Amino acid sequence: MTSTTQAGPEGGSESGSGPLAGTSLDLNADVGESFGRWRLGDDAGLMPLLTSANIACGFHAGDPVSLLDACRGAVQNGVSIGAQVGYHDLVGFGRRFIDVAPEDLYADVLYQLGALDGLARTAGGRMRYVKPHGALYNAVVHHHGQADAVVRAVRDYDPTLAVLGLPGSVLLATASAAGLRTVSEAFADRAYAADGTLLARDRPGAVLTDPETVGTRVLQLVTEQRLVAADGTELHVVADSVCLHGDTPGAVALARSVRDRLTASGITLRAFATP
Amino acid sequence: MTSTTQAGPEGGSESGSGPLAGTSLDLNADVGESFGRWRLGDDAGLMPLLTSANIACGFHAGDPVSLLDACRGAVQNGVSIGAQVGYHDLVGFGRRFIDVAPEDLYADVLYQLGALDGLARTAGGRMRYVKPHGALYNAVVHHHGQADAVVRAVRDYDPTLAVLGLPGSVLLATASAAGLRTVSEAFADRAYAADGTLLARDRPGAVLTDPETVGTRVLQLVTEQRLVAADGTELHVVADSVCLHGDTPGAVALARSVRDRLTASGITLRAFATP
Amino acid sequence: MTSTTQAGPEGGSESGSGPLAGTSLDLNADVGESFGRWRLGDDAGLMPLLTSANIACGFHAGDPVSLLDACRGAVQNGVSIGAQVGYHDLVGFGRRFIDVAPEDLYADVLYQLGALDGLARTAGGRMRYVKPHGALYNAVVHHHGQADAVVRAVRDYDPTLAVLGLPGSVLLATASAAGLRTVSEAFADRAYAADGTLLARDRPGAVLTDPETVGTRVLQLVTEQRLVAADGTELHVVADSVCLHGDTPGAVALARSVRDRLTASGITLRAFATP
Amino acid sequence: MTSTTQAGPEGGSESGSGPLAGTSLDLNADVGESFGRWRLGDDAGLMPLLTSANIACGFHAGDPVSLLDACRGAVQNGVSIGAQVGYHDLVGFGRRFIDVAPEDLYADVLYQLGALDGLARTAGGRMRYVKPHGALYNAVVHHHGQADAVVRAVRDYDPTLAVLGLPGSVLLATASAAGLRTVSEAFADRAYAADGTLLARDRPGAVLTDPETVGTRVLQLVTEQRLVAADGTELHVVADSVCLHGDTPGAVALARSVRDRLTASGITLRAFATP
Repeated sequence: MTSTTQAGPEGGSESGSGPLAGTSLDLNADVGESFGRWRLGDDAGLMPLLTSANIACGFHAGDPVSLLDACRGAVQNGVSIGAQVGYHDLVGFGRRFIDVAPEDLYADVLYQLGALDGLARTAGGRMRYVKPHGALYNAVVHHHGQADAVVRAVRDYDPTLAVLGLPGSVLLATASAAGLRTVSEAFADRAYAADGTLLARDRPGAVLTDPETVGTRVLQLVTEQRLVAADGTELHVVADSVCLHGDTPGAVALARSVRDRLTASGITLRAFATP
Repeated sequence: MTSTTQAGPEGGSESGSGPLAGTSLDLNADVGESFGRWRLGDDAGLMPLLTSANIACGFHAGDPVSLLDACRGAVQNGVSIGAQVGYHDLVGFGRRFIDVAPEDLYADVLYQLGALDGLARTAGGRMRYVKPHGALYNAVVHHHGQADAVVRAVRDYDPTLAVLGLPGSVLLATASAAGLRTVSEAFADRAYAADGTLLARDRPGAVLTDPETVGTRVLQLVTEQRLVAADGTELHVVADSVCLHGDTPGAVALARSVRDRLTASGITLRAFATP
Repeated sequence: MTSTTQAGPEGGSESGSGPLAGTSLDLNADVGESFGRWRLGDDAGLMPLLTSANIACGFHAGDPVSLLDACRGAVQNGVSIGAQVGYHDLVGFGRRFIDVAPEDLYADVLYQLGALDGLARTAGGRMRYVKPHGALYNAVVHHHGQADAVVRAVRDYDPTLAVLGLPGSVLLATASAAGLRTVSEAFADRAYAADGTLLARDRPGAVLTDPETVGTRVLQLVTEQRLVAADGTELHVVADSVCLHGDTPGAVALARSVRDRLTASGITLRAFATP
Repeated sequence: MTSTTQAGPEGGSESGSGPLAGTSLDLNADVGESFGRWRLGDDAGLMPLLTSANIACGFHAGDPVSLLDACRGAVQNGVSIGAQVGYHDLVGFGRRFIDVAPEDLYADVLYQLGALDGLARTAGGRMRYVKPHGALYNAVVHHHGQADAVVRAVRDYDPTLAVLGLPGSVLLATASAAGLRTVSEAFADRAYAADGTLLARDRPGAVLTDPETVGTRVLQLVTEQRLVAADGTELHVVADSVCLHGDTPGAVALARSVRDRLTASGITLRAFATP
């Protein structure tokens, strides 16, 4: 976290002036998740509020037209582009664990990185980081073989890419050991279990939708490195980025609430990687 | 066509010494067309005999592992890597016309180019040219909207890429007008109709499998710019490259026969684009 | 069209009492078009207003869970189940012509019919009719090879199935010649060209969304066999069924408006095939 | 196992006359595993040697044309048709575990059963049994949720269908408890671990390809209910059916060897379910 910002007119960053001036935070969300006739998420509404966009890569969501649109939107809004790589499972939206052999996953990730990077460059931007999606995100918290495959693909594709993931995950440890930059994130709109993992999506209260609550949680996270778990346990969480889910109902209102609360407190919203 | 060659020990090029010494020709074939459990073509056997490899990009054939293997094989053999972009139609192997809107096709081609280029670079090579596959290849002979979409995608992705296609096609005319390098090809193992197009695959005699016949045709093509159509008509064909189909029975034997006949006549086999 | 109705309590049919009492009409719409995480259309809202449900079969839309839900909804609402067979093209939503060989299309249609029929029977219903979707619907208006493939598949699967299509289409002529029952339809929410075909979707005014306008058009169609084309031409259209698009904005309001206008005029809404 | 045979003229059964006359065995193999341009297995060569054909259903392998061909081949050879249901994973050939929710798997299995049954009936046959494929086969040995989903789908689709699986598996226990007929099988061409499960495919010696060895193993299995594991352990295995893999190199020769050894010993090859 740094004390100065050089936000251009097309934004992606805002400086604050309160007591926390000098603190900065990244706000990331999943975009580009439509597929053909099926639309998902309000990318146009969300993009101006983000600093980093996790763009799908076509394996769990995102046809090429949607992905190109998302890349263009990110460039126009000065938002940093990340590749949200996932399992090859459209009907499951990448939310089901697949026991992919590491060598296959390595090639799958490379394929997705190249595809998105090409679209990003054609849109006038560059891919800056990688974040696994859905069940792959959860798997690489502990699955060494798959985490290693993702990390090797990122390093072999472009070792300047950052890896965004869960604090304490095998993924981030492996990426760090491989010399990659790692960025840890917390979830603004998801309830936590007492052990610091996310409450499963199908549990009651797992997805938070009240802008006030979400805004307060994020502020507490940034200022006190503290999150309250669903059972009341206080968790110590250090995160360089906060994630909002683009397909959560009212995602745009949540993002705006988070943004307003943070800037009102003097915290700068800024991408961890230059767009 | 040039008069000198700098073939390294790993090949992809051979100089000849006969009366045609100084003439060179590119030999291209489709590779990387396996998909998961399903194997197709003898890439390992074919690659050392080619100068250019049209590698599938995952839309009509080619899973990421097969594509990465093909890229590695091309690099090892000093073969030039081309992207064989196709319709998104695995079950049809890209051999059925799809009335894709140009804006969708533009994004589809960009996606495929980026994906293959990423794999090629990871394998230590670079994508050097683009060749449409199957029904897309046939469509862009005359379909302005789809030809224009392919050309714009190639130009926006990397204007140094060459475009390989049928002499006289709308594709090559459009690519040339867009400032792209164009390369025309003839088919070694396919019978021609009297109008210079290929005989449909399901017609008797459409696919040639005798190495002797194929070798002779190619030699005649290079030395006399002449091909005899299925009905006996003599066609004037100027081609910088000759295509062999990797999934034709006996493709390796055909490639060897073509290679032997050409080098015996002093013709150099050399990629049109530096690998 | 018949003069009596025996609507049971679970509906799908309502008798009227106005001057047109005794006239009946079928109201069909596309349902089951969601896919995994992606939802499309308001099946739950629409189903009680329909008499026939064109349920997707998984090739252009519809994962098995969505299809089973749609079958259950149809059974619960006493709505007749039809198979909406399409091209195998999820990303294109079946709206792009594919030049499928008739023998392949024959097997594709059989596969879809069996899949949907199994789900329908498990839900306690039966598949009663077949309606091609999207680009296949448009193709079989004139494409003899594809129309013939669809008809042969329907006949070989179950010759008691009805075929729903455009009046005057090759599909209905072929189906009739094969001894199948044919049902012709008009479109409530689409503008017509002067030649009786639909205005292309991307043309301004092609999709009608005003409930009042749509209701009036349908009433005029039923009572006068008349539709006014986009250019003002009066068309004579005889239809046993009227189609509403489930993914048209406000589809439920449109369906309700059509239903209200018809029943207020004494016209009975009734499925052409017993649910 | 029964003591008499009534092989009809349409075959699929042969009576023997040796000391084991009266003993019968089913011989099953996977067929219909081609996909579009990609061919796999020698269905035409294998079918006359089988008594039961596990036909893919399109989710892990098998396009509709290949499946229809396999159904026709089974009918022509008097072979019993079974549905080989699998995970929806073409690129993985259904050989990777997918953590599908039971309600999704239930619908997936129903969809596959209906699709194959429709093709089978159009070909003049009927689907008689269900066998999970690949990673699903392995999962339902122990995974209660997925086993239960498969069994409920089979029972709801057609409770006269038999379920073919591994002796001692959760699948067979669940199927039996649901009132379904169960059939247990042993593997002719795969090595066993000491605990009675199959040695993983990627282990050396896991796949047996010598016709003599395989023939001997099967004979020992039938006559002594005994199989020798890879480490020499003697296993007691009771099986009503023996499985050969259609994509094992030399599958046809293996099938012929097994057939010859069994019939020479007086054992009748007969489908467990009437074709």
